[in-house]
Amino acid sequence: MNVGDVGEFGLIARLARIVGSERPDVVVGIGDDVAVLDVGGPRWLVATVDAHVEGVHFLRHLITPQQLGRRALAVNISDIAATGGEPAFALVSLVLSESEEVEWLEELYRGLRAEAERAGVAVVGGNIARSPGPMIIDITLLGHVRPEHMLRRNGARPGDVVLVTGTLGDAAAGLRLLLNPSPDLAAPYALPVAEREALVSRLMTPTPRLAESRVVARAGLATAMVDISDGLSSDVGHICTASRVGVRLWADRLPVSDSTRRVACLLGVPAWELALSGGEDYELCFTVPRRVALDLAARVTNETGTPVTAVGEVLPPEAGRRLVLPGGQDVPLEARGWEHFAPPS
Amino acid sequence: MNVGDVGEFGLIARLARIVGSERPDVVVGIGDDVAVLDVGGPRWLVATVDAHVEGVHFLRHLITPQQLGRRALAVNISDIAATGGEPAFALVSLVLSESEEVEWLEELYRGLRAEAERAGVAVVGGNIARSPGPMIIDITLLGHVRPEHMLRRNGARPGDVVLVTGTLGDAAAGLRLLLNPSPDLAAPYALPVAEREALVSRLMTPTPRLAESRVVARAGLATAMVDISDGLSSDVGHICTASRVGVRLWADRLPVSDSTRRVACLLGVPAWELALSGGEDYELCFTVPRRVALDLAARVTNETGTPVTAVGEVLPPEAGRRLVLPGGQDVPLEARGWEHFAPPS
Repeated sequence: MNVGDVGEFGLIARLARIVGSERPDVVVGIGDDVAVLDVGGPRWLVATVDAHVEGVHFLRHLITPQQLGRRALAVNISDIAATGGEPAFALVSLVLSESEEVEWLEELYRGLRAEAERAGVAVVGGNIARSPGPMIIDITLLGHVRPEHMLRRNGARPGDVVLVTGTLGDAAAGLRLLLNPSPDLAAPYALPVAEREALVSRLMTPTPRLAESRVVARAGLATAMVDISDGLSSDVGHICTASRVGVRLWADRLPVSDSTRRVACLLGVPAWELALSGGEDYELCFTVPRRVALDLAARVTNETGTPVTAVGEVLPPEAGRRLVLPGGQDVPLEARGWEHFAPPS
Repeated sequence: MNVGDVGEFGLIARLARIVGSERPDVVVGIGDDVAVLDVGGPRWLVATVDAHVEGVHFLRHLITPQQLGRRALAVNISDIAATGGEPAFALVSLVLSESEEVEWLEELYRGLRAEAERAGVAVVGGNIARSPGPMIIDITLLGHVRPEHMLRRNGARPGDVVLVTGTLGDAAAGLRLLLNPSPDLAAPYALPVAEREALVSRLMTPTPRLAESRVVARAGLATAMVDISDGLSSDVGHICTASRVGVRLWADRLPVSDSTRRVACLLGVPAWELALSGGEDYELCFTVPRRVALDLAARVTNETGTPVTAVGEVLPPEAGRRLVLPGGQDVPLEARGWEHFAPPS
């Protein structure tokens, strides 16, 4: 049996069974996006690691080293933001060949520094190893979270409202622009250059929602939170699994930017499909009891300027995971997000 | 200019200049084997990361997955032991192809678990990423150190004695047995099978010197400490650089096991050369003021059973780094240990 047969999440479950253990200082252990650890101070430590593999997570001719440095750190920051925590320290593990250009790597580190400074992160160490294979940037990010602020995937309750920050599908639209520059999409009358660049930069240099996460965490009203890295349909599923609940999303309530609507139209795909399953947006998705949901959404927008949209509702587990299409048809919600080694469905 | 031109340490220095920053919560930052972080509790957090790349750090036909799992974690534990700290939490980042065998990975994790249990470490998370290239096991290890126990590379003073735990050169002898199984070495009369296996297992599954490190740290007498991963000649050089001191080692005082002496003899190389530059032994090297050195050495041996040997003395910086050969000749000490991307000398 090989990894392709069981898929990424199947493999993680098998490996977690071997090394998983209960310990009082491990608040959240293997199987989550982040580990949460009691290290003796007033705040818990949060830790997460994420690898960017050349040819799989980035293509060198499509991204500058500065963008890559920013991105590699940003996706980790987003994981910590989703806990209501604050990122603090990064360890950077590089795997590369000796023919790699030093100047290119210095540019990569300038990107890292830019993102680190933006988020209050110190790069405190790492490792450099030689490899004949693709370049890999593997970043471990450590941060802090106050126990009373911490949000996980497992607290959503039936009746809660599902909220998302910002707009969804922009990174997916940016990826399609990048990979399929057909004349229709590239022509100036189809999409202004500035809009095109904005979409591509959402993909290349996502902005983790740290300020928004702070407002949500301090309000103490949300019941669960994730960041949208794989795609809303997949990531909201993580909340459902961990919270043992169902969910209903409305396709026509998903927040989509005008630019992404235009790309979707030119591509001939529904915009909500890009928003639902595109991934890489690094927005936050959180659940909030109905009576305070609009209040919290308004608070986030007032304090950060970022729109917050109600896109669904949490259901009892027996209701399953549902999607209401724009025409009103209620269909099963398929998790179509990104999964490494997705097993055959 | 490429990475091969500047070498591993040259590259780290360049990248550290870009991202290095002063911050009150960063006790030890980029450029050391471990980062030391003030996270608000009574103990500091220590963090280190180390990658095992297939074909570079391990050959799959020569190591079992269980051994590899043990080894990948052990080398990180050794880094934390060298600070006088206690390892606590591991994050395991795997980079692999989808054709990888699940059973092989489960064996890897059984090895990880064995080493984790031995050292009191919880595996709390990680990441799995797809790659067409060589398999990589990249482990981030977090631990604790009491500020008053912490040992670094930079406290050695002229007049201190250089001490090492255990025996040196065994892993290098094991590697040569593994890679060059010439009839002379393989023949039963040359080296008993049990001795051969003991040397190979020192290479495959090193035992980090945690108990010994505890005794040294709590005694509060040592001035600097490193683990011997690259080779004594190279690692003692890290102490010299960080402490701005010189050193003199005596080749004939290096502790060498009878088995390694026998292998050296069969190979026709001086045993002290294996001990001085072999690397991968994961013993501790520490410096102690002369008047308490023998006392501390005896205390470590009494409490752990591990021999401790005085192999040299710390000198003023202007004396440089010297090696006294068995014949009495005093020559420059060359750092011949392992360095990724070693630049041409």
